Amino acid sequence: MLDLLETDGYAGLTIEGVARRSGVNKTTLYRWWPSKPSLVAATFRHAIARDLPVPDTGTLHGDLTALLRSKAAFFADGPGRLAADVLAHTGADAELGRLADELLGQHCAHVAELTGRARARGELTGPVDDALLADLLLGPVWLRAVVTHRPLPPADADALVDTLLAGLPTDRGRQR
Amino acid sequence: MLDLLETDGYAGLTIEGVARRSGVNKTTLYRWWPSKPSLVAATFRHAIARDLPVPDTGTLHGDLTALLRSKAAFFADGPGRLAADVLAHTGADAELGRLADELLGQHCAHVAELTGRARARGELTGPVDDALLADLLLGPVWLRAVVTHRPLPPADADALVDTLLAGLPTDRGRQR
Repeated sequence: MLDLLETDGYAGLTIEGVARRSGVNKTTLYRWWPSKPSLVAATFRHAIARDLPVPDTGTLHGDLTALLRSKAAFFADGPGRLAADVLAHTGADAELGRLADELLGQHCAHVAELTGRARARGELTGPVDDALLADLLLGPVWLRAVVTHRPLPPADADALVDTLLAGLPTDRGRQR
Repeated sequence: MLDLLETDGYAGLTIEGVARRSGVNKTTLYRWWPSKPSLVAATFRHAIARDLPVPDTGTLHGDLTALLRSKAAFFADGPGRLAADVLAHTGADAELGRLADELLGQHCAHVAELTGRARARGELTGPVDDALLADLLLGPVWLRAVVTHRPLPPADADALVDTLLAGLPTDRGRQR
């Protein structure tokens, strides 16, 4: 099904086309996935569970950098590049909206796993809002994947994590 | 035209419909805007220049918070809510891709104006990559506007700027 998404795009994909290509009876497809969005969502759930492991490098800096690089690389190629096309249609369909929420929830759980480990190691010394950190990490990746269609380069992923860890270089006393 | 976008969505909008609603001859519309994307892009260029002034509160914290709040509010209501629908179609059309690039470029210029002022005041004491900071600020806003369709609440905008300014609470010596 991913090769059909690649050639036809999400808008052009039909269940009839998937049936023809896969040799699976259309009625069988409809029994399992009652609509195009549910079929597409199921395909991505599978592809994403396989492609996005949670890094464990031993440092928060290493983990966040590896996580961000892998998310950026995911959207640059293969099923991920198609996922960006699918994510652009979340407004038009509730099932794809749920897929986007699941991906965000999964990403947030990954971030919480990393910050939990960093806290256990004594690296993180204060409270962190995992959902907010997840937004700050994934926002630039999804913005580029879905809106500008230019994937985040690895060097930018590293610089982004550096900025998040260190904060902006301000004269703290005058900051507010 | 914005009211037609509101009722029909970007996908359902036609130049014929705009001509009917506006009373402007279809041929005249086509002379100025040869395609639906160019007409939509022109409308948003106008709406956005009007709705998004650059804040000047006297502090970097105040400026960044005001900027992020205004961008988040823009997508929550009025033409901005429709802009999210339009931005989801950037992959399918080069003119809308250019609109997204212009919006990003304008946002980046706004961020550079704020950091330039903060540097002149002595608030910013080191180098800042304005494009990266622009991504970190706008990423969560666009992610929510275009993909999850839940606008960033003002409290989250404030927390996001706090995190960007201060960095994560780490034991810096052990960070790497």
